Amino acid sequence: MPEFLRLVPPKEAVARWLQAFPTEPPVERETIPAAEALGRVLAQPILSPHALPAFPRANVDGYALRAENTFGASPSLPSYLRVTAEVPMGGTPSGEVGLGEAFLVHTGGMIPEGANAVVMLEDTQTVRPSEIEVYRPAAQGQNVIAAGEDVEAGEKVMDAGIRLRPQEIGGLLALGVTQVAVYMRPRVAILSTGDEVVPPEVEPRPGQVRDINSFTLASLVTRSGGAPILGGILPDRFDVLEQAAREAHASCHMVVITAGSSASARDMTASVLSRLGEPGVLVHGLSVKPGKPTILGIAGDVPLVGLPGNPVSALVVAALTLVPAIARLGGAKVAIPAGRIRARLTVNIPSEAGRDDYVPVRLEATPEGWLAEPVFGKSNLIFTLVRADGLVHVPADATGWAAGALVDVEPF
Amino acid sequence: MPEFLRLVPPKEAVARWLQAFPTEPPVERETIPAAEALGRVLAQPILSPHALPAFPRANVDGYALRAENTFGASPSLPSYLRVTAEVPMGGTPSGEVGLGEAFLVHTGGMIPEGANAVVMLEDTQTVRPSEIEVYRPAAQGQNVIAAGEDVEAGEKVMDAGIRLRPQEIGGLLALGVTQVAVYMRPRVAILSTGDEVVPPEVEPRPGQVRDINSFTLASLVTRSGGAPILGGILPDRFDVLEQAAREAHASCHMVVITAGSSASARDMTASVLSRLGEPGVLVHGLSVKPGKPTILGIAGDVPLVGLPGNPVSALVVAALTLVPAIARLGGAKVAIPAGRIRARLTVNIPSEAGRDDYVPVRLEATPEGWLAEPVFGKSNLIFTLVRADGLVHVPADATGWAAGALVDVEPF
Repeated sequence: MPEFLRLVPPKEAVARWLQAFPTEPPVERETIPAAEALGRVLAQPILSPHALPAFPRANVDGYALRAENTFGASPSLPSYLRVTAEVPMGGTPSGEVGLGEAFLVHTGGMIPEGANAVVMLEDTQTVRPSEIEVYRPAAQGQNVIAAGEDVEAGEKVMDAGIRLRPQEIGGLLALGVTQVAVYMRPRVAILSTGDEVVPPEVEPRPGQVRDINSFTLASLVTRSGGAPILGGILPDRFDVLEQAAREAHASCHMVVITAGSSASARDMTASVLSRLGEPGVLVHGLSVKPGKPTILGIAGDVPLVGLPGNPVSALVVAALTLVPAIARLGGAKVAIPAGRIRARLTVNIPSEAGRDDYVPVRLEATPEGWLAEPVFGKSNLIFTLVRADGLVHVPADATGWAAGALVDVEPF
Repeated sequence: MPEFLRLVPPKEAVARWLQAFPTEPPVERETIPAAEALGRVLAQPILSPHALPAFPRANVDGYALRAENTFGASPSLPSYLRVTAEVPMGGTPSGEVGLGEAFLVHTGGMIPEGANAVVMLEDTQTVRPSEIEVYRPAAQGQNVIAAGEDVEAGEKVMDAGIRLRPQEIGGLLALGVTQVAVYMRPRVAILSTGDEVVPPEVEPRPGQVRDINSFTLASLVTRSGGAPILGGILPDRFDVLEQAAREAHASCHMVVITAGSSASARDMTASVLSRLGEPGVLVHGLSVKPGKPTILGIAGDVPLVGLPGNPVSALVVAALTLVPAIARLGGAKVAIPAGRIRARLTVNIPSEAGRDDYVPVRLEATPEGWLAEPVFGKSNLIFTLVRADGLVHVPADATGWAAGALVDVEPF
């Protein structure tokens, strides 16, 4: 019996289907060590328990001093300062920087009381054991990372629903957040059907073929952040298939059936899926090749997918349907698609010729396409990368990109 | 003391460094279930133990017959055939298709002896219980997947060094290859240094900061297929650092040290790394921002990396250096870079308007850029996807892409 399907464009079909999903993620939460949470989806917003850095820090190796003591300094007319102490790494400076004084400080060291700037070693010369010449005027705040410059106390630094990347793991631990609540992986039931299908470890008899779809789909589910639950191979019998589908529906967050290859087997899949609950089958047939005889539905809060039996069709359609569904069921708010994105720069990115630059940017969707907004920040600040969606590369033979230029944003 | 580095462009530096790597992967092999091998690197080529499919199969629902019995058939002058049997799914046909005869066959069913083509149900009409009219002539081999059309017996279907995707998992199991030899993950030692650095679970005293780099780098290593071995936080003392580096060198496949932030701490890292073995430090200083004070070296067969202490610099440079290094140490032959690739089509891809097409393509690097060669194949053939590097999308409003067109290839 030929099928007469009302074909729906795949993008529209998936959008319509996702709209019928439960609004809250149906999965449980668990609390795990932040250091092991790579790739997991955050189930709580993170508020910073304190400012980062917690104290003002030097951004270079140099001398902490009062900027006003260097005004007008030049190689021909240097400022002279007395070096009265060295800031110990990991400790607090002893005493205060007075007028005409400077403390030796290393990158990352605490800025002592009284000082408001750091001059780089390269702009100084030691003239006596505890006296330096400064050849350049320092501006207030120069080479200083202020307390709270990366993150303020109480600031929301991560939203629930983000998938944790290496920089978020680092950011969490920088704040002492060693345990985080994440969503558990959605359980995706995978049922393969077909009287001709045997498990891979079995030697097929003539007319039989080994199961492929259970394993390609399970791998795709795993890679997409889901937990595949293999329901095995079912014969093309309505009662057996319906029973298995009901059990999967009761215990999993999504049910996927790869139909037998024939039209009658596909019709049986559609009938079984339509009996699992309301609203049932939403889409039967996609205007896509490969993958036309695809079924999308939902029964109660559990999305249903009927995939074609052909392994190539099944895998291609699974990438279009299961991947966004697993993200949604697992609580992930997918604002930015995966992969390289072409975007328009909002401001100039300057760069020196002869140097490769990697500039963190945040992406914003507009009706005219993606905008890339550089996240400028001193290179010590881990939350620069937490705020960024990717990097823009300025190659060595370019001297930067102009505002309005189209650039490639690499996910990072 | 200011640093005077001879800066090397990052691409050149990484290429020079990778050239000094051991030619054979230094990691051990292990044999694991193919169904659990997603993302692992194959350590052996795979030869097909048998043809796939093992028997000729119908590609549609229809009637298996002798093509010559339908020559000249049309709606006004149909061919009449007697339906003498139905091919059971998963079984062998009973008997042979004789002259003027046809067997009912379902998609995936075995082609009976005597038949050499399948006409689709849609091109037939049942006129009596066991007689059909055929309205269209069938060509020899039409709607038949020949034995061995996907894979021949003894054919090399996968090379050692590929990273297994869902389609390779399916392809392995389709051939009954349920166990595979894969490379073990390279062990990457990560040592953080800095007198000011404390573990994340510790409440930092004034002047102290929590360790970030150990965890951002461990996450990146994990995501790239390596096994991070955290060596903890070391004080800025030469003897302690050297001892820890020697132990890491003896037990791991790569040693990564994130230097303390100051120039003197970075110098100490360089000295320690240069004492671990020959040839020692190869590159000291990259013309890249962030990440200039990076060290690349190798001692014996163990690559060495000195990363800047700043978390942003460390993570950006780690993506440039550790990721290709882990691939190489783990036996992965990375021919195709990750992410979307713009490539030139070698031949036309036809497509119907109103339908989204996804066409598997193989990528080839040429001096003029990437070429995309479509892997045409019937949609049943899983090795179509194994041979492909990605998919080209033909949207519904296009009627295909012409040879020579630049298209986006999505990794698949």
